[in-house]
Amino acid sequence: MLKYPKPLEDLIEDFSKLPSVGKKSAERFALFIYTKLNEESTREFSKHLIEVKENIHICKKCGNICEDELCSICKDTTRNHKQILVVETVKDLYTIENVNEYQGIYHVLNGAISISKGIGTADLNIDSLVELVKTEELEEIILATNATLEGEITARYIKELLQNYPVKVTRIAHGLPVGGEMSYADEMTLLKAMEGRREY
Amino acid sequence: MLKYPKPLEDLIEDFSKLPSVGKKSAERFALFIYTKLNEESTREFSKHLIEVKENIHICKKCGNICEDELCSICKDTTRNHKQILVVETVKDLYTIENVNEYQGIYHVLNGAISISKGIGTADLNIDSLVELVKTEELEEIILATNATLEGEITARYIKELLQNYPVKVTRIAHGLPVGGEMSYADEMTLLKAMEGRREY
Repeated sequence: MLKYPKPLEDLIEDFSKLPSVGKKSAERFALFIYTKLNEESTREFSKHLIEVKENIHICKKCGNICEDELCSICKDTTRNHKQILVVETVKDLYTIENVNEYQGIYHVLNGAISISKGIGTADLNIDSLVELVKTEELEEIILATNATLEGEITARYIKELLQNYPVKVTRIAHGLPVGGEMSYADEMTLLKAMEGRREY
Repeated sequence: MLKYPKPLEDLIEDFSKLPSVGKKSAERFALFIYTKLNEESTREFSKHLIEVKENIHICKKCGNICEDELCSICKDTTRNHKQILVVETVKDLYTIENVNEYQGIYHVLNGAISISKGIGTADLNIDSLVELVKTEELEEIILATNATLEGEITARYIKELLQNYPVKVTRIAHGLPVGGEMSYADEMTLLKAMEGRREY
């Protein structure tokens, strides 16, 4: 088996680590960088990889990603800070936010309870949510975890944690295809799911 | 439209430049780097991008990529240096080489003549092939450009250039699916195509 020169083999290996990228695609990507992408763009690409690690922070309040202490949503005083929509990932937050309908704020769990992946409640950003419910006068917590087993278990767990506090806990409606990932849903499905949310 | 923090947006843009990578995939890749890939691996990835640009050279003889002046194939004295297989890209060279059948050497054109893409004969590594034919005693030139319009035109052009020299010019057989790309062919198809090559 003829190997590519080491720098290229290394880069192929890096690209192979990306989700759903196999050996053939990684090879195409690395060869594209080598043959087609100009020197300046490649240097920018290289720099951006480091900057993503160094210059992005987690919003102290909601767990969203941002460049400051608080994210732009938590800083926005025109939004309804008494309504919190709980999502598994930052990507889900962006998916919902870009439908341009929701006016409350968010809470990012950073995953879902999963026995198979060994993710427990301590690994998730749940404590700070309970703390918020305890200390602030909130109106509604909308549980928008995925319609998967893990998402359901997580929603149920949070519902139980919050049941003794005077806050309405709702669950986003199952307009979302069961087993699917939220970030692949179209806008209408997301809107329907939001409208149809019910007492949990 | 809520934007990701700038470092992430920049990285998404970089990933979008890769072949067949759309906005959604680029987003997944960038978020994967941010959330899942550890700091060390990210630094390696960043470094490898630069190294691919800085430490890979073009073999002076055949146009293959390598880390020295000549590639390992051109350096290999056990191979038949009188038989040259002409391919469009380095990737095609690797595809054929990894079938482990061919014992001659290669010549990489670095593309094919394409009117629509504005690639002419001057943009390709053709002169050095003619020079080799003129100065060395060669037995056979195997034209293994793709079975596409561009590949056929390129093969025909080279055939004409070489017709007055005492070298046998053959064309790889059309066992390859017409219109398809060589690097996606399976080993058997490639072997059949090699065996069935005919006087051109």
